[in-house]
Amino acid sequence: MNIKVIGNYIGKFAELWEQSLTDLIKEGVEGVLADAQIDPKSIDAIFVANKASGSFNNQRHLGALVSEQFAHFPPAMRIEGACASGGLAMLAAEQALLSGVYKTVLVLGVEKMTDVSGSETAAILATAASREKEYGSTFPALYAILANYHMNKYGTTREQLSSVVVKNHLHAFDNPKAQFHKKFTLEDVANSAMVASPLRLLDCSPISDGVAAVILSSKPSSRKAKILGFGHGQDTLALADRQDLGRLAATEKAAKQAFLMAKLSQTDIQVAEVHDCFSIAEILAVEDLGFFAKGKAAAAIAKGKATYGGQIVINPSGGLKACGHPVGATGVKQIAFLANLIEKGKFERVLAHNVGGSGATAAVNILGI
Amino acid sequence: MNIKVIGNYIGKFAELWEQSLTDLIKEGVEGVLADAQIDPKSIDAIFVANKASGSFNNQRHLGALVSEQFAHFPPAMRIEGACASGGLAMLAAEQALLSGVYKTVLVLGVEKMTDVSGSETAAILATAASREKEYGSTFPALYAILANYHMNKYGTTREQLSSVVVKNHLHAFDNPKAQFHKKFTLEDVANSAMVASPLRLLDCSPISDGVAAVILSSKPSSRKAKILGFGHGQDTLALADRQDLGRLAATEKAAKQAFLMAKLSQTDIQVAEVHDCFSIAEILAVEDLGFFAKGKAAAAIAKGKATYGGQIVINPSGGLKACGHPVGATGVKQIAFLANLIEKGKFERVLAHNVGGSGATAAVNILGI
Repeated sequence: MNIKVIGNYIGKFAELWEQSLTDLIKEGVEGVLADAQIDPKSIDAIFVANKASGSFNNQRHLGALVSEQFAHFPPAMRIEGACASGGLAMLAAEQALLSGVYKTVLVLGVEKMTDVSGSETAAILATAASREKEYGSTFPALYAILANYHMNKYGTTREQLSSVVVKNHLHAFDNPKAQFHKKFTLEDVANSAMVASPLRLLDCSPISDGVAAVILSSKPSSRKAKILGFGHGQDTLALADRQDLGRLAATEKAAKQAFLMAKLSQTDIQVAEVHDCFSIAEILAVEDLGFFAKGKAAAAIAKGKATYGGQIVINPSGGLKACGHPVGATGVKQIAFLANLIEKGKFERVLAHNVGGSGATAAVNILGI
Repeated sequence: MNIKVIGNYIGKFAELWEQSLTDLIKEGVEGVLADAQIDPKSIDAIFVANKASGSFNNQRHLGALVSEQFAHFPPAMRIEGACASGGLAMLAAEQALLSGVYKTVLVLGVEKMTDVSGSETAAILATAASREKEYGSTFPALYAILANYHMNKYGTTREQLSSVVVKNHLHAFDNPKAQFHKKFTLEDVANSAMVASPLRLLDCSPISDGVAAVILSSKPSSRKAKILGFGHGQDTLALADRQDLGRLAATEKAAKQAFLMAKLSQTDIQVAEVHDCFSIAEILAVEDLGFFAKGKAAAAIAKGKATYGGQIVINPSGGLKACGHPVGATGVKQIAFLANLIEKGKFERVLAHNVGGSGATAAVNILGI
């Protein structure tokens, strides 16, 4: 496979009260073009990742809105897979490049969530769940079920959940684009307000606005970051229909496909951005991706095995938890952040993992030099 | 290019009060699998076309909902480009097949629009327009501007607009899946209620529920219908930003690319399903696709040149106007209807044309034996 990430840009993740959805799109387009240093006319097509701009921003033709930022109006489509929209837009773009139809494409992820109230946002997000939403289940409630199951089956502890949060906020402290720059102790997490037992406020990723963009190209380039493999998995929408609440089968399937395509194994990966929408989600992710044995990740993270100097660096950006989670932007941000680490010569084999819903959709991308 | 349409299915288009969004999806999956007569496990991936199930049906993870109709949970993503969602899902599926990542994919388009009131539906649809929506412009109002421009510049008449409607209702009369089975006279159309001058009620496509699906495969098959070419064009969202209100540049670009890929010219095409969301839209479409010279299509349609026995058959299904327009399903229905005509040996070179917004997005597919 000959696809390189020839440009990357991440806007500030925050509650961006003074920027509109269109402002974020303009910022993402200008930022990634400036990084790639290419003629805008060389963009052959655009893949836009966004979950719900119709409901958040009263805007329902987002591909066209990104396309019209260019004088030559590149073909554009919006890709949606709930919170995995960014990862899926990467897959659609990669497939388009492999088809030979296009040579250079823009993948832009954006979400402007704070244009509606927090309760409206929660209601919009919950509609990516299954019939569970009809019983009033929110995403924290669904992930709380997964957390309780994991704690009961594998002995995962409150302190271990907290260690994920502490680590990711430490990582975010060094990321200027992160929504939060505040270090927390294990006690801070364990004493934060209860949301859905056992998940507390600091176990949960925030509501965020933000944009991220990458340019992928099959043309020769002096840039370092290559796409080595990708995978896409699905599972049932409802937790009640799952075989095993101790794992996300969609992640396992996506990882298997991506590693096969990349001809790599888990021990080759030095750093991964994984979908930690809740603390328990990171634990599930690094187990289901195969970085840690099932039931062993929580203890390993608590022992420092998932940060610098450990076995693998998980969520160096701060993850969804501390960098922020503007839904459609998240999966693209993972790629942009990792590609930038490769460009800077810091790492050579990296992985991005993006989940939709409570695990119905998963996308994995593996990048390297 | 070696992609065949190995299965096609169109559900009844209507106000389907007794079927849910999930019911329609189940019907589409079962229907197209039955037509293709393949093992469901051979579906490698799914591309779902839908405009606004989040707002219409409180469902925002549609790819996963289609995937879970299969025991093996194929990878699924939702593709959206306003009313061109179906056409764009075809393009994404074609690119995925050409990439070699998948061999057989399902493209399913669905929209359940009648779960909200007519005024809510109009408001949801209008958000695919540009800042124009802030001035209260609805789609009929925007297409009325295009109609007035065309009438002033090219002498297009009220009677010629009506002739599009009369023809498409005649065609729909023979299509059991069509929403309307009622023949109209030129006078009926000209005397129907005014919506946005000069467009009257019978100039407008209806609000519809419906599903359509095709299975595309790069594997050997005894089926006849092949994909010969495809194209994708964009233009400004707002009419005010356009160079020329007498044409849709997005259609011209998409057609040019599709004809180039298919190595065919307009005179090779025997039948086309085009995006007649309003009577004027069909006139623009057949001019911008190159079937009739600019400014000459309205008179040609009125003279019977766009029906059986004429120069080309336009909208044999009845089009959006009379077959119905369940937004996400429309572009897929066009492909399913045309593929079925080819299978039955009725035509050998056909074209589908799907538009988003007031012409910001256009997708063209050319099929043949």
